[in-house]
Amino acid sequence: MSADEESRLARVALTWLAEPGTRAVHQLVDRLGPVATLDLLLDGGSPDGWLHSTVAARSAAGDARAVAAEALARADRLGARLVTPDDAEWPVRVAGLKTLRLPNAIRRVDGETAPPLCFWVRGAWDLGEALERSVAVVGARAATGYGQHVATELGYGLAERDWTVVSGGAFGIDAAAHRGALNAGGLTVAVLACGVDRPYPMGNTALFDRIADTGLLVSEWPPGAEPLRPRFLIRNRVIAGGTLGTVVVEASARSGATQTARRAIHTGRVAMVVPGPVTSAMSVGAHELLRECTEVRLVTGVAHVLEEVGRVGADLAPLARGPQRPTDALDDDARSLLEALPRRGVRGVDALAARAGVNVRTALRKLSLLEELSMVVRRDDGYALVPPTGSKGGA
Amino acid sequence: MSADEESRLARVALTWLAEPGTRAVHQLVDRLGPVATLDLLLDGGSPDGWLHSTVAARSAAGDARAVAAEALARADRLGARLVTPDDAEWPVRVAGLKTLRLPNAIRRVDGETAPPLCFWVRGAWDLGEALERSVAVVGARAATGYGQHVATELGYGLAERDWTVVSGGAFGIDAAAHRGALNAGGLTVAVLACGVDRPYPMGNTALFDRIADTGLLVSEWPPGAEPLRPRFLIRNRVIAGGTLGTVVVEASARSGATQTARRAIHTGRVAMVVPGPVTSAMSVGAHELLRECTEVRLVTGVAHVLEEVGRVGADLAPLARGPQRPTDALDDDARSLLEALPRRGVRGVDALAARAGVNVRTALRKLSLLEELSMVVRRDDGYALVPPTGSKGGA
Repeated sequence: MSADEESRLARVALTWLAEPGTRAVHQLVDRLGPVATLDLLLDGGSPDGWLHSTVAARSAAGDARAVAAEALARADRLGARLVTPDDAEWPVRVAGLKTLRLPNAIRRVDGETAPPLCFWVRGAWDLGEALERSVAVVGARAATGYGQHVATELGYGLAERDWTVVSGGAFGIDAAAHRGALNAGGLTVAVLACGVDRPYPMGNTALFDRIADTGLLVSEWPPGAEPLRPRFLIRNRVIAGGTLGTVVVEASARSGATQTARRAIHTGRVAMVVPGPVTSAMSVGAHELLRECTEVRLVTGVAHVLEEVGRVGADLAPLARGPQRPTDALDDDARSLLEALPRRGVRGVDALAARAGVNVRTALRKLSLLEELSMVVRRDDGYALVPPTGSKGGA
Repeated sequence: MSADEESRLARVALTWLAEPGTRAVHQLVDRLGPVATLDLLLDGGSPDGWLHSTVAARSAAGDARAVAAEALARADRLGARLVTPDDAEWPVRVAGLKTLRLPNAIRRVDGETAPPLCFWVRGAWDLGEALERSVAVVGARAATGYGQHVATELGYGLAERDWTVVSGGAFGIDAAAHRGALNAGGLTVAVLACGVDRPYPMGNTALFDRIADTGLLVSEWPPGAEPLRPRFLIRNRVIAGGTLGTVVVEASARSGATQTARRAIHTGRVAMVVPGPVTSAMSVGAHELLRECTEVRLVTGVAHVLEEVGRVGADLAPLARGPQRPTDALDDDARSLLEALPRRGVRGVDALAARAGVNVRTALRKLSLLEELSMVVRRDDGYALVPPTGSKGGA
């Protein structure tokens, strides 16, 4: 087994020994790496009494490395893959989860907010790329017709403008948001609290199949894992932190969706709320958020959402570029597209895609990214280069 | 004619020569008094070209003093009365309208925001007392069933808790708020943009009759005045400034109700908005207010409204008492009730009303006022005195 394979196996074993998001495990992995951390924990060297007994209980039930190997084999059989921070498609934004400031009086499991050790992924898209320009749309399972209508419209409108729609795959608002994105032929990601081979709830099986075909099913738990109740709260931090912003469409008082919105605020993301009739129990949590959190923005449709996350996207762009040369951050497709652009004037998307050797969909996504980075500018009939130094008139 | 009668006649004549709220007129009245101002204007001594031509045009159409005398006689015949700053029932809060900071790009007529020179009033209540604990509930004429339901509930709930419900008597939200208050057996005030003898719209005639019977119809325009379009905007400043807060229930984009809410903010009152479905055109203005004005509070029912205006009421109480002895501000009924309270212990409301020689309704209103002034404290079985000096434990 290669060192890389050993490291991947260790990450999987660690999420089986203790639930994903366990802070003590993450701190050890940061310091020692996954393999040494696994060895330490299996040798009874946990720095924390609670973690020690958790690991002991799990170890009594099976051999962590063998369980992990079986999970990897099972994933392989069903066409799922493991994504770790060592992979190019690792979504960088989830590292930001470290910065979570925790509200008081939060439950222990809810306090376990370290970044994920790994993701299990079903679907053809690059995970990092899929989350790059993403917005979460979440809300009540017992949604009203109004809420489902609004969530579908939001999912459709965001997908149509090439934003990835992220949600939790639940009944009600989540499902409506996914469906809206699918109907627009867009990209949607369901972040699950169980194995990607058995997405919960069963009633959404057809929806999950469509998402796996054209988007992504993502989970921190290995194939076969059950959707235990505390896992939804752990999962929510990925929805809140993996996207640029979270929109709550309907939420009853103190619901999971309002918790996701509060997480988004604590993680420095944009939290947005769609109001509803004050006579509806399904909007009580939404209105509570608007009354209690000054950071929460009221949005009534996709234009408002784009206004909010567009602003953040613009703010983040300089950070993302960092001290490197701008083109260092680009992948081959984006670089090819840049090279396909004329030094002066405009070239159409079809022509650019053909010259760069990519399909039109990829060309559009990469050009949007380049536009955000102020490297190209969109014109009526295609794209043009922005001069790399000095006058930045175009953007 | 007595000096007092001459002064009253001059105020009426001035509102006929130039629309109520004309700043230049108010400044002159402040400096010279109404009689000298009237003489000055009739002699062509207007300090302002626009005012000069307005006065000239009106004067050509009739004799201002004769018109005013006719208006007073007409009011007398229909049982309406004139209320001026010289009357005990003048609502002190409208003087605060002076503090209006005007938004830019506001139309001339909308910029005319001086306090009223006088009010025409139909109804038995003392105008000042009626507005003392008052909240405005305003909104769209083309209200939805949802909006009318919410406005009725708010009107009912506020009136039930002894708050006066102020609105503009229009179709839709205004009428629903008035009706809610009437259904609770409470006090409601319609502030009109036309004469109190011909309340507009005609379709609400039965409602206006009920309001005149148990509450108040109020206008700055004399009997017979028509509801010209600009008058509604002038009228709105009284709704916004004469109350402790304004609740907007439904409003289309850039509607009169949102203008009233902005006036409330500029006058230092509380502006509150009830959200609604984002799919409803009748909530677009409401949501705009919530997105654009950080001072605007989202409210979902009467509890939230009371939380907001209750806070302001508490803040205002020390100001209202000023440097006088607390009891100086009280009327005879309130003083009688204070005297009817035992030095120690509690006395029931019925017993207090009987001893003070007032009816129970009056007793409850006055005791609420005394409670706000921290002079009495409400107990389960009645009211008790708060010691006038030193320890203020009770309130």
